[in-house]
Amino acid sequence: MVMGQAMREQFLKDRDIEFLLYEFLDTEALLQRPRYREHSREVFEATLNTAKTIADNYFANHYAKGDTNEPTFDGEKVTLIDETKAAWDAFAEAGFLAAHYDFDEGGMQLPEVILRSAMAYINAANVGSAAYPFLTLGAANLVHSYASDELKARYLPPMMDGRYAGTMALTEPDQGSALGDIRTTATPTEDGSYRLRGQKMFISGGDQSITENIVHMVLARIKDAPPGVKGISLFLVPKIIPGNDSQASTRNDVKLAGLLHKMGYRNTTSTVLSFGEDGGAIGYLVGEPHRGLHYMFQMMNEARIGVGTGAAVLGYRGYQHALQYAKERPQGRLPSNRDPQSRQLPIIQHADVRRMLLMQKSYAEGGLALCFYASSLVEDAHSGNTPVEREKASELLDLLTPIVKSWPSKYCLKANALAIQVLGGSGYIREYPLEQLYRDNRLNPIHEGTEGIQALDLLGRKVPAKGMAGYQILAKEIQQTLTACSGDPALRPLVEGLRSGLSQLNGVTENLLLQMSANPDRGLANATLYLDVFGRVVVSWIWLRQAAIATVKLADNAALPEEEANFYHGKLQAARYYIEWELPEITPQIALLESGNGTPFEMQSDWF
Amino acid sequence: MVMGQAMREQFLKDRDIEFLLYEFLDTEALLQRPRYREHSREVFEATLNTAKTIADNYFANHYAKGDTNEPTFDGEKVTLIDETKAAWDAFAEAGFLAAHYDFDEGGMQLPEVILRSAMAYINAANVGSAAYPFLTLGAANLVHSYASDELKARYLPPMMDGRYAGTMALTEPDQGSALGDIRTTATPTEDGSYRLRGQKMFISGGDQSITENIVHMVLARIKDAPPGVKGISLFLVPKIIPGNDSQASTRNDVKLAGLLHKMGYRNTTSTVLSFGEDGGAIGYLVGEPHRGLHYMFQMMNEARIGVGTGAAVLGYRGYQHALQYAKERPQGRLPSNRDPQSRQLPIIQHADVRRMLLMQKSYAEGGLALCFYASSLVEDAHSGNTPVEREKASELLDLLTPIVKSWPSKYCLKANALAIQVLGGSGYIREYPLEQLYRDNRLNPIHEGTEGIQALDLLGRKVPAKGMAGYQILAKEIQQTLTACSGDPALRPLVEGLRSGLSQLNGVTENLLLQMSANPDRGLANATLYLDVFGRVVVSWIWLRQAAIATVKLADNAALPEEEANFYHGKLQAARYYIEWELPEITPQIALLESGNGTPFEMQSDWF
Repeated sequence: MVMGQAMREQFLKDRDIEFLLYEFLDTEALLQRPRYREHSREVFEATLNTAKTIADNYFANHYAKGDTNEPTFDGEKVTLIDETKAAWDAFAEAGFLAAHYDFDEGGMQLPEVILRSAMAYINAANVGSAAYPFLTLGAANLVHSYASDELKARYLPPMMDGRYAGTMALTEPDQGSALGDIRTTATPTEDGSYRLRGQKMFISGGDQSITENIVHMVLARIKDAPPGVKGISLFLVPKIIPGNDSQASTRNDVKLAGLLHKMGYRNTTSTVLSFGEDGGAIGYLVGEPHRGLHYMFQMMNEARIGVGTGAAVLGYRGYQHALQYAKERPQGRLPSNRDPQSRQLPIIQHADVRRMLLMQKSYAEGGLALCFYASSLVEDAHSGNTPVEREKASELLDLLTPIVKSWPSKYCLKANALAIQVLGGSGYIREYPLEQLYRDNRLNPIHEGTEGIQALDLLGRKVPAKGMAGYQILAKEIQQTLTACSGDPALRPLVEGLRSGLSQLNGVTENLLLQMSANPDRGLANATLYLDVFGRVVVSWIWLRQAAIATVKLADNAALPEEEANFYHGKLQAARYYIEWELPEITPQIALLESGNGTPFEMQSDWF
Repeated sequence: MVMGQAMREQFLKDRDIEFLLYEFLDTEALLQRPRYREHSREVFEATLNTAKTIADNYFANHYAKGDTNEPTFDGEKVTLIDETKAAWDAFAEAGFLAAHYDFDEGGMQLPEVILRSAMAYINAANVGSAAYPFLTLGAANLVHSYASDELKARYLPPMMDGRYAGTMALTEPDQGSALGDIRTTATPTEDGSYRLRGQKMFISGGDQSITENIVHMVLARIKDAPPGVKGISLFLVPKIIPGNDSQASTRNDVKLAGLLHKMGYRNTTSTVLSFGEDGGAIGYLVGEPHRGLHYMFQMMNEARIGVGTGAAVLGYRGYQHALQYAKERPQGRLPSNRDPQSRQLPIIQHADVRRMLLMQKSYAEGGLALCFYASSLVEDAHSGNTPVEREKASELLDLLTPIVKSWPSKYCLKANALAIQVLGGSGYIREYPLEQLYRDNRLNPIHEGTEGIQALDLLGRKVPAKGMAGYQILAKEIQQTLTACSGDPALRPLVEGLRSGLSQLNGVTENLLLQMSANPDRGLANATLYLDVFGRVVVSWIWLRQAAIATVKLADNAALPEEEANFYHGKLQAARYYIEWELPEITPQIALLESGNGTPFEMQSDWF
């Protein structure tokens, strides 16, 4: 039987990426910054075309195959399907592992948003194989930011050209979210290196058959370190100690204890690693002792934005598939049509299918816009024109990271569930790609900090940080959008909706900070609900900004080609949907938060 | 590595089943009805003990194995793991395939609620293997209700003793939800039988290696039948034509075209069947021509309640697993505790984990109570003491069936998602059972009518039916509960919540019926939102009834053993959670419905 796989898939539409980069964001303005003066929009577009070609030719081809034939471990060696290495090589050969570094470091001095757009194409094509470059980029950045010149000289070049991959090794069998309690130890030796002993779990890419070496960025505790998070140090622990002129390469004391078998994301190995079973794994301290968690937060925050973006493109891809199916599949008639001999309609004509598609559009395109905006903040924090601009971007980014990580992870997974629902039984079978997208996306609310952890981070840390500096910046930004849009009659209901949302958010935030100061445990108890409220307001803002672009373009409708007019009508309708249907749910949520509802908090363990 | 599988699992707690049967429902009162006079509570309990033993010994043992080793088809023969047949045999040998039939038909005259409780144990242990008896029960009931005495004599006994299994063959490759358009044809022959030709798809249990024969209950169209749903007839089409004294058994012209490969529920074959590729499959008309869909609704409605129950027990099982894990897994400290050297807490002590567990409890136990209530209505519709009582139960059941099917399918799947979230990374790997429960449960919002189909059924048919007779009965029942509970101060906030919910539901229902009469397409456009509102009100009522039992028991707290007091406190807290947290979400939903919000309805295909 020829089924869904034969249908031509659009993973990520160029028109949407173009809209995000050049209409929603002003990526061309980056060309005015010193770092990007030698670039042009053409260079950016050529870069994305390269990424797209690699995505289509080297990643998309084994998306299903890597799921069906997941990595295996025979006790000695991990085996992956060959296409994984071919994809890695193509990515590395195109220079993407080094593209964002400066020219004089061997990079292409590419802006963050362009690199992340390139990664979005790759992730949309095959998230399971994309994890290897994704993690390597983060690990290399960590080395780049904090390692000694000696370590950098030794490990960065092979990570930039694809000979070495990288991982982040934080979690242990007994410690997941509570990193302060990790038990892996690091003992100094006379040559200045350390010997690491301990076990790490859920380490993605912890072993593979793609690269000649793997650089593990490992959190461990030096003997007599202070307890808790202030006693954690960061180590670079290679799988193989590279040789030099006088010495051959040697295997480090890092062993693969086993592979974990995931529901999805299967072509990414998930490993349990044993460090130091035979005396100690050689590791090199990165930066200062006991500051490891602080350093690692760079990689975690980068990964959090990456997780959000990955979730968004999985949602987007599923939405495109469901959309195409709904346009082609005839089934049933409108309720008003009682003539059983009339032609059946494509299911997109059924109101409920249209509703499910519009929901998916609002989640997937809303999530993607949110993540692209976050990438632009990363960029502004680095290359912004003034210290004030850089500081502002940095504070806004800190505040929004929990939303950028968690909102797409929650709602773009929901988009995948809705896409399945559009296809019905066909959505549930492996003969179509949707069930895999759904399984893959289910990881995203978990890794790089669960939803609950993001909620505690937002309400417990990010909102109150520096006298609410980040929050004030966000509120001001939203206010500016409201002011800018208030003159447009087509946007009035949306402006009113968001204005009310922001004012409710301000109120509940103030209220919760008081509750927290009275009793931190109880005040933080409903933080996950607050995270959801916060996300709804932020994404409503993201959608209003997109709608505002659309109404301007549509105002001069006569000049627009029909396809372009349709495109903007779609953006406007998705914004309407989000602000009319999804934002108002904050009202009962806020009532619960403001009343400090304690029903879950007061539930006793014995009552379950 | 020894992981989750080693943890002793509680699939379904006896105390909850006992509560549902003898406190929430008055199952003992059935013993007063003539049909059950020879039974006793001891008989019921012995029956459930048998079911539990079979579930533990024959179904639970291959839940994961049947997922990993799904059925295969080599072009000739379907192969299932051997445990599937052993489970089927144990179920059949215990008499469960015939238990609800009268003594003089060879049954045990068992009440519906007891049979469904037995099935709940089986489903909780292994939903993939339970589908075979589940479908056979429904098919046999259909034969029992509508087939000729001759067909009954030939096919019922082997379906009751487990030699034959049954299926429902409705869907075709081009027709899923729109059954009026099915194309399978049935041509009469001189011997009174028919020849069927056509293809059926997504037929669960359509082929297997468990039973010597399979009885397909097939919808097809007789030549020159009226178009649409009024021209569909029901046929009994055996896989093998049974022989008799003068004739050997012969293979019927029903071929397995292929297996479909599902995300979950994998041990249940999902098949594409070709009827009549070699001249015509022999089929026997059941009942009158053209009334097939009407007959088939008996099996569909039975299956819908079964799907709801199945979804509820999967949610329940996942909740129990997450609960046990949360009590045992130490991780982190309370926000107020800044001492990193203090002991880590079991994660159930974290407010957000407790919230996720309480949500699961409210969904799983709420869903199970709803489904048990529906089974009691099936019972009352059959064996109720008066025609009025039977009619009332029947109308209430008709109205509630879309809720009973869709609410647990939606929210108990969400419970599984939350269970995964409690375990974090461990929830996502196949080393623990939660990811399979989640994959299995994802089928339930799809089969036996998607959520959208249930919504159209509820608002388009069931609510307006017979001058809103069913709706009025429900409203009156809820009103009676409110009145009965209004004197209890502990229940006052819950009573107020539900009273407001009911009044809002009444208002929006009236409003929507007006919208529908003005424009059926637009009036029904947001039916799925209405389905959700309706479900929240109904489940709030179900929870208030459970809470009312709890407060009565707790009022005399001194006499209660601690464990019992904990049990009732838990029920009360779950009811509070549901009515305080989940019910108020209807307010923004109703605002959308009453305003006839047309944003999804007005979305144009070209705008996507």
